[in-house]
Amino acid sequence: MSTFVRVGDFAALDVDRRHRTGVCEVVFGAGKTAEQTLRLLRELRENDRTGPALATRCSDEVLQAAPEAFPGEPVGVDATARTVTVGDLPPPAGNAVVVTAGTSDLPVARECLVTLSVLGVGAQVIADVGVAGLHRLLSRLDELRAADCVVVVAGMDGALPSVVAGLVPAPVVGVPTSVGYGVAAGGSAAATAMLSSCSPGLVVVNIDNGFGAAVHVAKIMGWARRAE
Amino acid sequence: MSTFVRVGDFAALDVDRRHRTGVCEVVFGAGKTAEQTLRLLRELRENDRTGPALATRCSDEVLQAAPEAFPGEPVGVDATARTVTVGDLPPPAGNAVVVTAGTSDLPVARECLVTLSVLGVGAQVIADVGVAGLHRLLSRLDELRAADCVVVVAGMDGALPSVVAGLVPAPVVGVPTSVGYGVAAGGSAAATAMLSSCSPGLVVVNIDNGFGAAVHVAKIMGWARRAE
Amino acid sequence: MSTFVRVGDFAALDVDRRHRTGVCEVVFGAGKTAEQTLRLLRELRENDRTGPALATRCSDEVLQAAPEAFPGEPVGVDATARTVTVGDLPPPAGNAVVVTAGTSDLPVARECLVTLSVLGVGAQVIADVGVAGLHRLLSRLDELRAADCVVVVAGMDGALPSVVAGLVPAPVVGVPTSVGYGVAAGGSAAATAMLSSCSPGLVVVNIDNGFGAAVHVAKIMGWARRAE
Amino acid sequence: MSTFVRVGDFAALDVDRRHRTGVCEVVFGAGKTAEQTLRLLRELRENDRTGPALATRCSDEVLQAAPEAFPGEPVGVDATARTVTVGDLPPPAGNAVVVTAGTSDLPVARECLVTLSVLGVGAQVIADVGVAGLHRLLSRLDELRAADCVVVVAGMDGALPSVVAGLVPAPVVGVPTSVGYGVAAGGSAAATAMLSSCSPGLVVVNIDNGFGAAVHVAKIMGWARRAE
Amino acid sequence: MSTFVRVGDFAALDVDRRHRTGVCEVVFGAGKTAEQTLRLLRELRENDRTGPALATRCSDEVLQAAPEAFPGEPVGVDATARTVTVGDLPPPAGNAVVVTAGTSDLPVARECLVTLSVLGVGAQVIADVGVAGLHRLLSRLDELRAADCVVVVAGMDGALPSVVAGLVPAPVVGVPTSVGYGVAAGGSAAATAMLSSCSPGLVVVNIDNGFGAAVHVAKIMGWARRAE
Amino acid sequence: MSTFVRVGDFAALDVDRRHRTGVCEVVFGAGKTAEQTLRLLRELRENDRTGPALATRCSDEVLQAAPEAFPGEPVGVDATARTVTVGDLPPPAGNAVVVTAGTSDLPVARECLVTLSVLGVGAQVIADVGVAGLHRLLSRLDELRAADCVVVVAGMDGALPSVVAGLVPAPVVGVPTSVGYGVAAGGSAAATAMLSSCSPGLVVVNIDNGFGAAVHVAKIMGWARRAE
Amino acid sequence: MSTFVRVGDFAALDVDRRHRTGVCEVVFGAGKTAEQTLRLLRELRENDRTGPALATRCSDEVLQAAPEAFPGEPVGVDATARTVTVGDLPPPAGNAVVVTAGTSDLPVARECLVTLSVLGVGAQVIADVGVAGLHRLLSRLDELRAADCVVVVAGMDGALPSVVAGLVPAPVVGVPTSVGYGVAAGGSAAATAMLSSCSPGLVVVNIDNGFGAAVHVAKIMGWARRAE
Amino acid sequence: MSTFVRVGDFAALDVDRRHRTGVCEVVFGAGKTAEQTLRLLRELRENDRTGPALATRCSDEVLQAAPEAFPGEPVGVDATARTVTVGDLPPPAGNAVVVTAGTSDLPVARECLVTLSVLGVGAQVIADVGVAGLHRLLSRLDELRAADCVVVVAGMDGALPSVVAGLVPAPVVGVPTSVGYGVAAGGSAAATAMLSSCSPGLVVVNIDNGFGAAVHVAKIMGWARRAE
Repeated sequence: MSTFVRVGDFAALDVDRRHRTGVCEVVFGAGKTAEQTLRLLRELRENDRTGPALATRCSDEVLQAAPEAFPGEPVGVDATARTVTVGDLPPPAGNAVVVTAGTSDLPVARECLVTLSVLGVGAQVIADVGVAGLHRLLSRLDELRAADCVVVVAGMDGALPSVVAGLVPAPVVGVPTSVGYGVAAGGSAAATAMLSSCSPGLVVVNIDNGFGAAVHVAKIMGWARRAE
Repeated sequence: MSTFVRVGDFAALDVDRRHRTGVCEVVFGAGKTAEQTLRLLRELRENDRTGPALATRCSDEVLQAAPEAFPGEPVGVDATARTVTVGDLPPPAGNAVVVTAGTSDLPVARECLVTLSVLGVGAQVIADVGVAGLHRLLSRLDELRAADCVVVVAGMDGALPSVVAGLVPAPVVGVPTSVGYGVAAGGSAAATAMLSSCSPGLVVVNIDNGFGAAVHVAKIMGWARRAE
Repeated sequence: MSTFVRVGDFAALDVDRRHRTGVCEVVFGAGKTAEQTLRLLRELRENDRTGPALATRCSDEVLQAAPEAFPGEPVGVDATARTVTVGDLPPPAGNAVVVTAGTSDLPVARECLVTLSVLGVGAQVIADVGVAGLHRLLSRLDELRAADCVVVVAGMDGALPSVVAGLVPAPVVGVPTSVGYGVAAGGSAAATAMLSSCSPGLVVVNIDNGFGAAVHVAKIMGWARRAE
Repeated sequence: MSTFVRVGDFAALDVDRRHRTGVCEVVFGAGKTAEQTLRLLRELRENDRTGPALATRCSDEVLQAAPEAFPGEPVGVDATARTVTVGDLPPPAGNAVVVTAGTSDLPVARECLVTLSVLGVGAQVIADVGVAGLHRLLSRLDELRAADCVVVVAGMDGALPSVVAGLVPAPVVGVPTSVGYGVAAGGSAAATAMLSSCSPGLVVVNIDNGFGAAVHVAKIMGWARRAE
Repeated sequence: MSTFVRVGDFAALDVDRRHRTGVCEVVFGAGKTAEQTLRLLRELRENDRTGPALATRCSDEVLQAAPEAFPGEPVGVDATARTVTVGDLPPPAGNAVVVTAGTSDLPVARECLVTLSVLGVGAQVIADVGVAGLHRLLSRLDELRAADCVVVVAGMDGALPSVVAGLVPAPVVGVPTSVGYGVAAGGSAAATAMLSSCSPGLVVVNIDNGFGAAVHVAKIMGWARRAE
Repeated sequence: MSTFVRVGDFAALDVDRRHRTGVCEVVFGAGKTAEQTLRLLRELRENDRTGPALATRCSDEVLQAAPEAFPGEPVGVDATARTVTVGDLPPPAGNAVVVTAGTSDLPVARECLVTLSVLGVGAQVIADVGVAGLHRLLSRLDELRAADCVVVVAGMDGALPSVVAGLVPAPVVGVPTSVGYGVAAGGSAAATAMLSSCSPGLVVVNIDNGFGAAVHVAKIMGWARRAE
Repeated sequence: MSTFVRVGDFAALDVDRRHRTGVCEVVFGAGKTAEQTLRLLRELRENDRTGPALATRCSDEVLQAAPEAFPGEPVGVDATARTVTVGDLPPPAGNAVVVTAGTSDLPVARECLVTLSVLGVGAQVIADVGVAGLHRLLSRLDELRAADCVVVVAGMDGALPSVVAGLVPAPVVGVPTSVGYGVAAGGSAAATAMLSSCSPGLVVVNIDNGFGAAVHVAKIMGWARRAE
Repeated sequence: MSTFVRVGDFAALDVDRRHRTGVCEVVFGAGKTAEQTLRLLRELRENDRTGPALATRCSDEVLQAAPEAFPGEPVGVDATARTVTVGDLPPPAGNAVVVTAGTSDLPVARECLVTLSVLGVGAQVIADVGVAGLHRLLSRLDELRAADCVVVVAGMDGALPSVVAGLVPAPVVGVPTSVGYGVAAGGSAAATAMLSSCSPGLVVVNIDNGFGAAVHVAKIMGWARRAE
């Protein structure tokens, strides 16, 4: 059996990825035409039915066209996360928590949540608990300390992941966001702050990369299952 | 009376500065020879005896030579702060608090403290209460909330000033430090994080500029006194 | 009584902030939908009537919808500042001065002014007195020297705050703006210049952050009042 | 029982950290005097004997003085890693693999290894298998695919973690190093490359932060143990 | 005969360039009006009929107007590459391979391909074989090792050229692309990674500069022909 | 007589500037409303009739409205330069040469030319003589060597000013432009190259600042006239 | 006569430069061995006796060896400027003024002064008149307004050249210096501030490049003389 | 036969590289101990005697120890290039030219030359022909136009490669160097200028990477030989 699938002259779908890494190939919609994205989603779906197919960073055109493009399939469209899923979601297992510093960080948090759901990880969101009002975070400490993994999504000063990583036993992944202006614009202030964290063990993904954080969490969860 | 004093062909001491801005001229020792720094300290002392003369960023050579350079004067040398003072310190008034995130931030905090003492502001230090262990900060909350002004000195992720600014009614000044490595090196990660703070009203000075933070605090105190 | 208010699943309003820090929670409109901004303004208004509610960085949609969204309430819309206020402004106290280097800096200066008015600080603007024509600034020296606090708003070379800080006894806050082009674009030239100022005690906020400068001034004023 | 320990006027040891986060407080030696580092190691050792005490980024002075500073204690000094441990190492559990792209990355890899050993994680190193000669990596594929967690240490182009993350099911942590010159100098090329990785789920720590990668791995291992 | 041609008051076409460097003058369409681009194409065509005329980075307006602008001439328009050619392509010689890391890199690869065809170099594309799924690349190793020259087009982490350069005897040119987001945005992460490559002999052109890579390859081919 | 003119509450026109610096105040149109720009042009015109009034960086709205806004006045609109002049131009004196590396640099060159004409300096343009085809430049060497002052406008690699400065006795001003893409985008590559020039005496202005280069040239010319 | 002189296998002295550009070739000592620098000085001296030979950025070794290396010649060594001159200085003509913001900027100012003296330009220094104490500058306004050319040397915020350029009719050259720390370190804050100046006509040279500013001034002076 | 050789626990020598890529494995001395470098040179020599072994970026310790470390072998030490070769050099073939802009660029040019000699490519240096005195370059035009490949080594403004690439038919490789100061420091100004070149087909390697340019040239030469 071939381990990848040629799609036209523009793509080589890595349908072996789930086998090698535990996480399926996903369509990254940015920089692709709507036609390409939908075509790749269909190829993914046809070549691997052990789980749903996922496209991230979808254009408005893809979000609108998706439901009709897959007749007879369960299609999930999340306009905030800009994701499309095709196929039934697996039953969720485990207990991840996705925290956001502010309301404007929610699109990134939702990309993370949708990806976790596609990968079979149970998760909840705790929104808008940034360090300017620390009591909001502390009021949720029990939930945070009970989590298997914590993803902290923050723009501007990127301070929240450092605080959370000092409070919980679970592995913590920081996701800097492009929320902010001036020297924070684009998210590099948050990214460098998180990488420079005084809290040991905080790891970081690219700016606005809710998807990547979810994959890391799923790999942790999958490893644990293998270990059982 | 002249408002500045020519010193050799290399300096023009602004002896009118105390009158204009409420804060005396100070010798910035970096980039000057030991001879120049000591000469300028002496000129300051001779032209303005309403308060002590101060030099910051002094070289080892200046720190060692200072006590003998001003016979019969009270000379204060702080090797951690790298400061020299000549003359009696004024009685301290008010209640500023200088907080540090880590032990390595202490030289900057001490530059701030010495400057505050020269400018007649009472102050104490709360050291090593960074956000990786938040309980250390929260255990000092009463002192922080009682402060007239708070200076927060932090390197690495620069997260601490955002947290403090969300907890206290006093004006808060963030001082980023060059403590850290990798993407934090030089302090720019801390500086951009503080400028991007999600906590309203946090103001920032240059990296390692404990002196500047102290002058701002003294101006606030002086303004209040004038307002009485 | 709860110290924050959950709003839908997207926000946790920090209604305790006025109590903790002396300055009320404010809605930061950027990155939020018009619906979210108006909803949060309403929640703020309902939970805290000791002063007006404020939203900054409002979209055109919010600016237009605001007057009808709060029937029976005094609503203030400033299209230059991009702010909305709901509720009566408190009587102004004190004497802050907001200086701008150029005409293009006015939107930032107005965000500062509106925020000061919401926080009960009296203020006036001195516009377009940049260092290319120093006599314009010097002609206003009496007003500047009489100020309780001075905010200096400048883009391009960011030189004006250094000049002002050398002339007045009041605390000075520099606000770099994104006005300019080429190496100045985005305001980082102005921001780094202000942080590097040769004038002691100048403090700096993020680029275009007129709001943050106002909050710092209000904290200074509030502290002085407490000190009385 | 107090949750932190005041040390002189310069530190507040977070002896509660192991309880909160599963990982003990560690002395970060950079920017501290030899005296401070040794003093803090001793305090750590005295306050928490459930595991060894660790100091990283130690100066030559600390490395040389450590064996005599703790008479009667097992002291481990690793001159390549620049670490000192005091106390018996716990028995190792689990199977982490630390990969390096080149020989010059070894000091960072060793900091990671020593930290893993202090935290009770079993680990081995696979050295010098950078992408310029891919067959070196592929010859170790079985070991890599059997790992519980993989840490990939690479300077210059930082390409190796992307390749590894596409080959193994375990969570992968990339550690950029400051190895290289020109546009790579300082490690920022490697760091931005890793954050921009086309391999989903790769997470990143600060440049040269072998310690932080080890703590994240230990948190993953600890979580798994709790999950059992 | 003059070695350049004045065009209006805005250009000086270098019609001698083919003679000096072996590669003809080409119209760079960015920053020019449609009128200027078409006018320059016409002048090129009229002054040098030893090969086709080429314009790159064409606006939609140019792409649409080109076929009618050159009646009776063979006109080639490539909307993905954003190129226009006027005149018959020379017969291709040699065997270059253009590799892309992802689907979104195709526009840059096509600019390279069209330029190679204009310069008489035979070439094929191998698309979407990025390092996240290395088997896709390895399945094409025979073609890669048989190539005269290899151009590798990659955004995000820019890791693919380093891998390819370690596998083939041909000269390898890396073309970073602006594909990606966050710290990769604009292509600087890919560019610095390629310049920092651990694979000896990899050379790099500007971000998205498929044209420049093609010219370098053509110069190599031309040199070899001269050497025969 | 007052030395500046208050305009509404948004500007303080520096009508004394011509007297102090030899060059009149000019309206910088960017960041101003069309209404503000036209109002300021009118005020300039009314307060100083010793030369024409000039506005740069005008929006389309200003360019279109200008002719009707000044009935009975000679109005010059240059859509490429984005300038408006009101009033008769002075007779040109002297012999400046403005060189461009490429066609896309012409808008900046024209801003320079229009400003020179307003300031009474005679000038010509030599366009599209970049270093990729050096013979184009060398064919104009006599004109260049006869110039009083030379302005060299170049984007991309910014190499042309270094070459010109090594060939002529006149003072040379380099104007980097934002022409280019990838690492050149925005003009910073050209700006840093010019500042780093190996040709002694090359001076530089901000990116795209054709206006500033013209003012410097006019000051040189004016100085010479005074010297006579 | 040849227009350049081969020196060993390491240099090609441009002895024609004075003829082409009005300014002689100069030895840039940085990155050269003492032997190379002295050898090149000697070659310069032997090939062109119409003026003195100059070397800048000399190492201590060169500064010490120079007097004995040219027996029978007038040798000038300036340890602050780090320059060596061999040969009699020409009689000074004209009236340039070199201004410094602070004492630490003097080495750069002296490099400028020595170069001006080698090129026959009369000049004086006005030291330590930075914008923190504006009255120091204003007290020298008559001298500044009488200058033929003004060079302003400033580090930190780089604000002084903008102020001076708004006050005088002469052409003004800004020289940013590497004086400062934190975000100012290396001089880039000063350089970007000067390039972004709100004062029209300010031109800028590289950081610490007192030599380049002097050459530009000499070219202006030379042009004027030719114009007579 | 194994394709790589384990050396202690710190290296995996890629002795198959010559077979895969046409260019042998080389020891990069930076970041390695002298012991490691010499050990690796010996292993290279023992495992592959088809050509000499090479180490670059050698410390003084390695340069001094090398001759005695390989008794009975021809050892070449180049203190300027900082290289060590062990074994007889192959007979040179072909005609590469290495050009430098200045004298200070020679160490990088020599690293390139030594590497070319190890790889069997004939080469000569043309030194100190930067664009400030263009006639020096033009006097060598015949040699440049006759070259098979040209490497141009330049710091500061990095302008020379653009000029050369516009004059010759051979492929041109630009090597930016760290020569310069201020905004040029470290070589990034030269690197970005070369990448932004207006001369088509110029390719670039990392700053100071004379070695990499040589490998690329050798691959071009090798390809041509294969093509015969």
